[in-house]
Amino acid sequence: MKATDVRDLFKSPGKYSDKEVMVEGWIRTIRDSKNFGFIELNDGTFMKNVQVVFENNLSNFDEVKKYPTGSAITVKGNLLLTPEAKQLFEIKATEIKMEAESESSYPLQKKRHSLEYLRTIAHLRPRTNTFAAVFRVRSLAAYAIHKFFNERGFIYAHPPIITASDAEGAGEMFRVTALDLDNIEKLDGKTDYTKDFFGKSANLTVSGQLEAEIFALAFKNVYTFGPTFRAENSNTSRHAAEFWMIEPEIAFADLNDNMQLAEDMVKYVISYVMENAKEEMEFFNSFVEKGLFDKLNNVIDSEFGKIDYTDAIEILKKNNDNFDYPVQWGTDIQTEHERYLSEKIFGKPVFVTNYPKEIKAFYMRMNEDNKTVAAMDLLVPGIGELIGGSQREERLDMLEKRMDEMGIEKEGMWWYMELRKYGGVKHAGYGLGFERLIMYLTGMGNIRDVIPFPRTPKNAEF
Amino acid sequence: MKATDVRDLFKSPGKYSDKEVMVEGWIRTIRDSKNFGFIELNDGTFMKNVQVVFENNLSNFDEVKKYPTGSAITVKGNLLLTPEAKQLFEIKATEIKMEAESESSYPLQKKRHSLEYLRTIAHLRPRTNTFAAVFRVRSLAAYAIHKFFNERGFIYAHPPIITASDAEGAGEMFRVTALDLDNIEKLDGKTDYTKDFFGKSANLTVSGQLEAEIFALAFKNVYTFGPTFRAENSNTSRHAAEFWMIEPEIAFADLNDNMQLAEDMVKYVISYVMENAKEEMEFFNSFVEKGLFDKLNNVIDSEFGKIDYTDAIEILKKNNDNFDYPVQWGTDIQTEHERYLSEKIFGKPVFVTNYPKEIKAFYMRMNEDNKTVAAMDLLVPGIGELIGGSQREERLDMLEKRMDEMGIEKEGMWWYMELRKYGGVKHAGYGLGFERLIMYLTGMGNIRDVIPFPRTPKNAEF
Repeated sequence: MKATDVRDLFKSPGKYSDKEVMVEGWIRTIRDSKNFGFIELNDGTFMKNVQVVFENNLSNFDEVKKYPTGSAITVKGNLLLTPEAKQLFEIKATEIKMEAESESSYPLQKKRHSLEYLRTIAHLRPRTNTFAAVFRVRSLAAYAIHKFFNERGFIYAHPPIITASDAEGAGEMFRVTALDLDNIEKLDGKTDYTKDFFGKSANLTVSGQLEAEIFALAFKNVYTFGPTFRAENSNTSRHAAEFWMIEPEIAFADLNDNMQLAEDMVKYVISYVMENAKEEMEFFNSFVEKGLFDKLNNVIDSEFGKIDYTDAIEILKKNNDNFDYPVQWGTDIQTEHERYLSEKIFGKPVFVTNYPKEIKAFYMRMNEDNKTVAAMDLLVPGIGELIGGSQREERLDMLEKRMDEMGIEKEGMWWYMELRKYGGVKHAGYGLGFERLIMYLTGMGNIRDVIPFPRTPKNAEF
Repeated sequence: MKATDVRDLFKSPGKYSDKEVMVEGWIRTIRDSKNFGFIELNDGTFMKNVQVVFENNLSNFDEVKKYPTGSAITVKGNLLLTPEAKQLFEIKATEIKMEAESESSYPLQKKRHSLEYLRTIAHLRPRTNTFAAVFRVRSLAAYAIHKFFNERGFIYAHPPIITASDAEGAGEMFRVTALDLDNIEKLDGKTDYTKDFFGKSANLTVSGQLEAEIFALAFKNVYTFGPTFRAENSNTSRHAAEFWMIEPEIAFADLNDNMQLAEDMVKYVISYVMENAKEEMEFFNSFVEKGLFDKLNNVIDSEFGKIDYTDAIEILKKNNDNFDYPVQWGTDIQTEHERYLSEKIFGKPVFVTNYPKEIKAFYMRMNEDNKTVAAMDLLVPGIGELIGGSQREERLDMLEKRMDEMGIEKEGMWWYMELRKYGGVKHAGYGLGFERLIMYLTGMGNIRDVIPFPRTPKNAEF
């Protein structure tokens, strides 16, 4: 007999009613009286446990009673609908077999554990309700992203993870090396990278955008979805050294096309997850962020706002008294301002566009005012910036000017400049931090709790 | 007027027949006579070019005639079905507009270029037929993998890229560091990693399997799909320092379940790509690997074979005269043997199982003979090994014994061992090198030509 996934039982219990089924999974809780007992069994395919009832007619009744929490078992029995009980159905066991007995030191006993403690047992926390829900949502959100872009004919591109260019992340990049650090060969007192694996200094990517532009100028519509890295020594609830990014890039497209794509994508992914992770999302709405559904439905149902940075600053300036960091034209917008705009002024997601060139990257397209660039940030209620993007500078002379002004080294960027010589039509794109999205979807407050094995300063366990 | 994707025109030309359409794209070729001309336009959404006919009634006819190859243009015109011509339809231009003029030094002129040369212009090669086809197949194959696992309820897990454990790849791992290599602080003559970002020595992952096991023992069925790394100094057509791997891991599952999953997946992905990249696959079948369709259809239509390593060696030994490397029990199977088995003996894909423990990894489950482990390699005609996997050793005492025998450091692996204490039920999994799969699907012979920006010894360009 083959086991049925618990997910399938919950999807159509009627189909299995009064039939013999087999399930396999791990004991979440077990309790017993003299002549019978209950097991809450979870097989990982569904958020909810299946309730197994066992009675003293089982040949191994006395042993089963003592099965430790966390053990893996198989259960054969009859599925009985229980319309009057809390759970939809239960399985009346005719056979229970131990598959892998857990030691009694198993940390996930019934009591609640703090998120901080659970981080120290990241090899076990996916077995808790909270993390099972987080990582299922993470998985479904990733699928939704692939599905969204695939339906629109976008090409999924894999930019390199190891890169010799540091145009974007100078100073915040991890170095990748095969040198023996205990015995580095030097040349004029400096590390001799010609001896290294790649024959030069190499880093972990901070963004796949520049290479995504290559693909957009061949395939028109492309996206990346892969890990990116920052060696930033900041121990906050929003920073990790390793995180996943989605970076679409579209050709024959301007900032408006870019905003439309971002709006469509955000709505698609939220809708997909709410439909396909109902139980998990209800869990988050009830226990992690009250009002989560209202927040997310508001995003799905709104037409996103748009406001020019200059206009946004005018509005914010009137409220400078309320901010820790007062704004004026030219300053970057902080989270407090982002939230004020999206929550208080717009009451929905809003794109802020056309930022001063000084606070944005070299590749963003210069506007006609020669002061601002065609950038866009998507601010959402509850979190602030979710997406950052821009139209790219496709004019070679303008690009080179900005590279010079910002001290970007051109040598490794010959190909990026050459793209502008050979049919480098207008194009645009944006980046979405995947973990930021998962935090938004679930209400989880710390990035360490939406990454399976977070990497942060002094922490690379597991 | 909004541009229509060329893909949509080819999908249903009848829908657009005799209607005005707008297309945008890049000029692949242009030729002209006195009073008219032809442009082969490619917009990246489809393998085939759309033929644009322009005549001297265009106000800018004399300019258009001189538009350089590689330029981005927009075209308005009427779509005319041309059932008697080589192409299904053409667009009779009423307006052609330059969007981004290419310089005349554009390297992708009509003549054929070698694959070796095209590698040096990886920023432009996706615009050639061959690489447009390769990278579209790559994108579709990636989607097929996500779709396959999603349909079966598998959780997509993200194991860490940066890892402090080196259980699998000692000696072949890239180091990740934020130390200043020019001025490394030492402790007793050795690099002081307590000063490094993670407070200890860290590497790039060679496999996400060990962490995938964590997820499988929570969610039952999971898979990973992400980049992995080897600092192996081998300059072959099959090795890259950075490549993507798919690693499913299934709990309550043994080697037979594992083989079934691998067989289902391989067939699914091949079928999906053949259905969804018809034009590209025809291109490969005609110009890259004659007989590609026969090879792939044979995989789809066959029930994969199974043979024990010991039996395979018996067969191979009889043919030792034909091999560069004669085999005997205990030796690893080389590509020549793999191909002999799958091509000559089975004539279809075949799983070889139960290898000697000495030539396999520490985590593979010991068989009762105490000499072999529950490993499986999938060998396919034309390439040899495509997939390698195993049932995992779930018995803690046996695992520790193997770790000791093979000198695996236990300190960083406490969590891996602990999984065996807490409901560590039987489980299995395998790894599929994504680039190996793309080579197999397309017939491309060098791994450098199926990765957008390959990383190999002395090469990290772009």
